[in-house]
Amino acid sequence: MRPGPYERHRELLQSVVRAIAAGECRRPFTEATGQDAADAGMRSTRTAGKVFRSLLGRPFELGQPGELGRVRTESSPYGLAPPIDYPRCDPAELIAAAGRAAAGWRAAGPYQRAGLAVEILRRLNTRSHELALAVHHTTGQPLQGALRAAGPRAQDRALEAVAQAFAESERVPADLHWKSAERGGQPLQGTCTLVPRGVSLLVGCPDFPLWNGCPGLFASLVTGNPVVVAPHPRSVLPLAITVRVARQVLAEAGHSPDLVTLAVAEPERQVHRRLATDPAVRIVDYTGPARFADWLEQHARQAVVFANRTGLNTVVVDSTDDYRRLVRGLALASCRCNGTVRTTPQNILVPERGFTTDEGHKTLRDLGADLGDAVDRLLGHPARAARALGAITADEVRGALTDAARYGPVLHASGPVAHPDHPYADLRSPLLVRLRASDERVYTREWPGPVSFLVGTESTSHSLALLRRTVARHGALYTSVHSTDPLVLAAAGTAALDAGVHLVENLDDLPADPSSALAELPGSGVNFVTGRFRVVRSRRHAPPSAPVPAPTRLEVDAALADV
Amino acid sequence: MRPGPYERHRELLQSVVRAIAAGECRRPFTEATGQDAADAGMRSTRTAGKVFRSLLGRPFELGQPGELGRVRTESSPYGLAPPIDYPRCDPAELIAAAGRAAAGWRAAGPYQRAGLAVEILRRLNTRSHELALAVHHTTGQPLQGALRAAGPRAQDRALEAVAQAFAESERVPADLHWKSAERGGQPLQGTCTLVPRGVSLLVGCPDFPLWNGCPGLFASLVTGNPVVVAPHPRSVLPLAITVRVARQVLAEAGHSPDLVTLAVAEPERQVHRRLATDPAVRIVDYTGPARFADWLEQHARQAVVFANRTGLNTVVVDSTDDYRRLVRGLALASCRCNGTVRTTPQNILVPERGFTTDEGHKTLRDLGADLGDAVDRLLGHPARAARALGAITADEVRGALTDAARYGPVLHASGPVAHPDHPYADLRSPLLVRLRASDERVYTREWPGPVSFLVGTESTSHSLALLRRTVARHGALYTSVHSTDPLVLAAAGTAALDAGVHLVENLDDLPADPSSALAELPGSGVNFVTGRFRVVRSRRHAPPSAPVPAPTRLEVDAALADV
Repeated sequence: MRPGPYERHRELLQSVVRAIAAGECRRPFTEATGQDAADAGMRSTRTAGKVFRSLLGRPFELGQPGELGRVRTESSPYGLAPPIDYPRCDPAELIAAAGRAAAGWRAAGPYQRAGLAVEILRRLNTRSHELALAVHHTTGQPLQGALRAAGPRAQDRALEAVAQAFAESERVPADLHWKSAERGGQPLQGTCTLVPRGVSLLVGCPDFPLWNGCPGLFASLVTGNPVVVAPHPRSVLPLAITVRVARQVLAEAGHSPDLVTLAVAEPERQVHRRLATDPAVRIVDYTGPARFADWLEQHARQAVVFANRTGLNTVVVDSTDDYRRLVRGLALASCRCNGTVRTTPQNILVPERGFTTDEGHKTLRDLGADLGDAVDRLLGHPARAARALGAITADEVRGALTDAARYGPVLHASGPVAHPDHPYADLRSPLLVRLRASDERVYTREWPGPVSFLVGTESTSHSLALLRRTVARHGALYTSVHSTDPLVLAAAGTAALDAGVHLVENLDDLPADPSSALAELPGSGVNFVTGRFRVVRSRRHAPPSAPVPAPTRLEVDAALADV
Repeated sequence: MRPGPYERHRELLQSVVRAIAAGECRRPFTEATGQDAADAGMRSTRTAGKVFRSLLGRPFELGQPGELGRVRTESSPYGLAPPIDYPRCDPAELIAAAGRAAAGWRAAGPYQRAGLAVEILRRLNTRSHELALAVHHTTGQPLQGALRAAGPRAQDRALEAVAQAFAESERVPADLHWKSAERGGQPLQGTCTLVPRGVSLLVGCPDFPLWNGCPGLFASLVTGNPVVVAPHPRSVLPLAITVRVARQVLAEAGHSPDLVTLAVAEPERQVHRRLATDPAVRIVDYTGPARFADWLEQHARQAVVFANRTGLNTVVVDSTDDYRRLVRGLALASCRCNGTVRTTPQNILVPERGFTTDEGHKTLRDLGADLGDAVDRLLGHPARAARALGAITADEVRGALTDAARYGPVLHASGPVAHPDHPYADLRSPLLVRLRASDERVYTREWPGPVSFLVGTESTSHSLALLRRTVARHGALYTSVHSTDPLVLAAAGTAALDAGVHLVENLDDLPADPSSALAELPGSGVNFVTGRFRVVRSRRHAPPSAPVPAPTRLEVDAALADV
């Protein structure tokens, strides 16, 4: 007999489950790629390029219900044309189809669901380069960055979500047994069943559609919820390919492919809002600016909303024993945002009177000048610039670069940078503006694109107080502190806990960045998984008065269909 | 050295944690009471009665901040007077005090918090009879029922919440360690910290204040959240005693007593709504009618709301091999609701054409008549009636008993029943009304008090379809099915899963009832606990460049207080 999807991937899954429980990090897809890309079944970039180009200007077929027409919403910031033509389906039909598919998926149980989820990831893994091209040409990210955000690292991140969801499902005791104390020890028994919450909606991220989208998509699937994937209109293709692969795997396993569907429409149709407020949608995943997160929490009342607010990523500089590394790290990070979803540090808080380093005392002015120089060096060569900078895709980003420069002395001006291969790509160097601590209304806005503020504070204590207050209020993907003083590190730790946000200490590597070794699941902790299901119990006398064979699913369906 | 609170209760706690993971049921408080009440330190009813009477007509002191005046909102449905005089505190002050106390409580960590929670439960356990009298005289429940809902069983239920919260906290790996694949295997390390969500609000239940209140109260406390307890104005005393005990235990352990405070006010001040919408309140627990649950979910946007909707508890009768037991169980259950929070079955769905029993075929009419007779037998003797029926406390219930009788043939009329000891107690026998399946707008309302509907359906399939639809829409604490046919039981199981509600099969014991051997935590599953905290990580190089002693809390506080 052919092994089921769970048996095929059991070892992989269990090894990740064990690693998570032990606080370790397993990255099977990334590790396999490093060693033997061919074994991992990854197609070469050349083949992927052919496949990718074959998609252009053609109808992208998904075989979904409720197709109303076709829609094109993307345009490549690198000038690749023509755009792809997606089915536009009636949102109500997609939700209804998901609802119809749900009972069978619930009945499949967590083992089969987790096995099929890993199977989908394995297939996506073989198409990593194609997915990377899709991310590159829709989000504008540099190709190498797109591979990180779309390939094995993204799959490992999704695998972590699968493993967490599987582990939480496995922890629900299947059978309950106890004795009634009052009734002469009458034995009772029960069954626990994990009941999925309902239809799950993934609101696609324009800049990191797979990196930020896959964890929620897979956590929902493994806990038994069908998923409607609504990509950002600017970046449909990466999620469209993902949905198509998922539908194939599900259909091959005898499940309804409509457990995973794609909802794409012209922006003015506001399909995200329509879906997020549908009474049948019970889960919403979203990563991005706080504004839409707030909207979701205000309006998607019927659903549990997993909103990962990019917010005000903040760096506190107190002191360092490696000034060059600090400067290089910040310069690199400040280049790494070409879109509207911030991963790079917006607010860099530094005492006005300067700080201690291995190269002597440095003033705020020194740091500003050195950062500007470091950025220029980094972008000094066109090929290097093209590796570091992504192409701008949104007018909003262009506007922010102009606007932000008005608020303070410009330490590094943003200017156009030529791409060696794509003359029409709009590459911009990062903008670095010096602000005072009192400019709070400027730096507590969430700025898109490569905008960073160097904010002068009275002291590190002042910096930490600002961090605590602004991040507690507006959120952040992470905070970061540079200090050689253990007391400052401990105080920063407390401030980060007060603000409820992750902290990195003396690392230039930042966890929100797909290229980071620190990257992990969005949100925080088990609730990302456990909020997607309930546990329902049935109870009866034990043992049953007469042992009877359990009815088959078909018989049960038939009995229920009677009416 | 004196053992800490965790060490003192470690074995008890771990045994409950193990039992939960194994799907078993441990009830240490109930078991101890059964065997040796004296050992458990429980005071006798006589002593408890004295203590209880000593509270009457006196100011109830809590030493809380922000006292604005005194307030009396209770009146005993058994005529006991004078009422107790509680402090009315400024809600903003209570929340501010909770906020100030939070950092120390977070820093105490899950071990100490769980240990102190068990300590509070142990002290409450020694006052079980006093708590039972408090529940009896405020909710109107019969004394024996009140002891179940306020004594060892309620403490065991809270202990289960403590154990679950502790187990979930323990599962967060304290230390993370991994290697960056990209950076020559540079070792990294991290720390995980459980970060409580914020101030927790318990909206007190008028009818089962401890039974329904303690699980949320203790789950929040153990996961590090301060709790503001806002009792229902009709039933303050049980929670006021609980709060006072908690404050004592916390203060003795060197914590701020303001981690647990009581918010009571005249009903027209709407203190629940004021608190539930305060931006600092991040968790709300509530058990009761769907109407206020809906209000909370609409308005308490800043908080995670754990709303346990009483909804439409539903029984499907298909067939039975013990007709007498079925009738007796339903008769008893129909008596057991004197308040506005329903635990008893409202809708009993039976095929119009009757059903098979061990006493031959029974029609709907037979069942109605037999149920009425059984109720009369049960209430035939005043002492027995006083044990089964609670005193009515709300005009809403009296209105419902009059109103519901207008919608169909009355199978058992509700009438006054004399209490042997309390001539002014308003006891009413249950109302049993026959409805048609088409009377959906009647039986999908949530009726308070002892109102049950016998609803005639076309078939058991029709009953199950009704159950699935109405319960999925309006919620329920449980559903119940009586059938000798395994196919019907399986179909009922599927219908209950579809509706997302617990099911009992062929049991007259109903899980929502404090006297039930089946009773367990409200809500369902781990999310009841995991939704109360986040996990925040800090990351750094490993090992640290130089081993340094960690700063003390005082030093850190001082550093943060600089500004």
